[in-house]
Amino acid sequence: MTWLDVSTENCSIQRSLGVIGEKWTLLLIRDAANGVHRFDDFRRHVGLSEAVLADRLRTLVSAGIFETREYQAEGQRRRREYRLTAKGWDLYPVLIALMNWGDKYEADPAGPTRIVEHLACGHPVEAVVRCTHDGAVVGPRNTRAINGPGAHLIPA
Amino acid sequence: MTWLDVSTENCSIQRSLGVIGEKWTLLLIRDAANGVHRFDDFRRHVGLSEAVLADRLRTLVSAGIFETREYQAEGQRRRREYRLTAKGWDLYPVLIALMNWGDKYEADPAGPTRIVEHLACGHPVEAVVRCTHDGAVVGPRNTRAINGPGAHLIPA
Repeated sequence: MTWLDVSTENCSIQRSLGVIGEKWTLLLIRDAANGVHRFDDFRRHVGLSEAVLADRLRTLVSAGIFETREYQAEGQRRRREYRLTAKGWDLYPVLIALMNWGDKYEADPAGPTRIVEHLACGHPVEAVVRCTHDGAVVGPRNTRAINGPGAHLIPA
Repeated sequence: MTWLDVSTENCSIQRSLGVIGEKWTLLLIRDAANGVHRFDDFRRHVGLSEAVLADRLRTLVSAGIFETREYQAEGQRRRREYRLTAKGWDLYPVLIALMNWGDKYEADPAGPTRIVEHLACGHPVEAVVRCTHDGAVVGPRNTRAINGPGAHLIPA
């Protein structure tokens, strides 16, 4: 069974994109990771309509990526804010990998808008792929993809 | 200038998604990384129409992520096939990070369809974020995001 014979329906990349692949969704996750939590702040900063934002926030909450907390500003009614869950924070390597690639290939000459630095030493961070066993940093040349236990044939 | 005041127009995550964020685009890159190179193979395996596929392939070639090579099967006319460039292969951490997250949260009980293993030892690989200076594996708790040189205010 070669990759061309394997159904992509349950491919994990495809499944991930099924959850976070909609336009704006990853940008809301980016903003939440940068401390944005409130509806109006998301709306103004990411630049989308109330209806689209409300829809994407619902999707993110029902996917378990955002959770809501109540807050109450003085003299105002109670509102909900949106925070990343552990599942949401687990997208951190996805965000950094996208940022690194954009910094390298798509940034303005002035440079990136955002730098993520290691608190302990102040140097920037990077997403890499490594072996879970020996920790070696690897790339496409010294890895290979094989079928996993969930691989099944494309239905005829 | 807090993150909420910074224009997201030139954010590197947003720029990356501007190139690879369209539906199907990352799935075509996934397939190319798994050895799929030909129009009809992409079409059947990823499951999209000729028109959409042709459009996405054009986008990927003009973005410098795919390049074309001619090939000629015996007794057939010359055709083009599509290969990842160095810029395209630099999305490897994005693909692995999406795969890891999907494996963890969205896979079927049977397990993942695909395992990427380190050739040298046969163990699976993972995307991690590390410090470019001391190599420490880091997460949101021991890093912080600060404005970079390209950060500018949202136009009034």
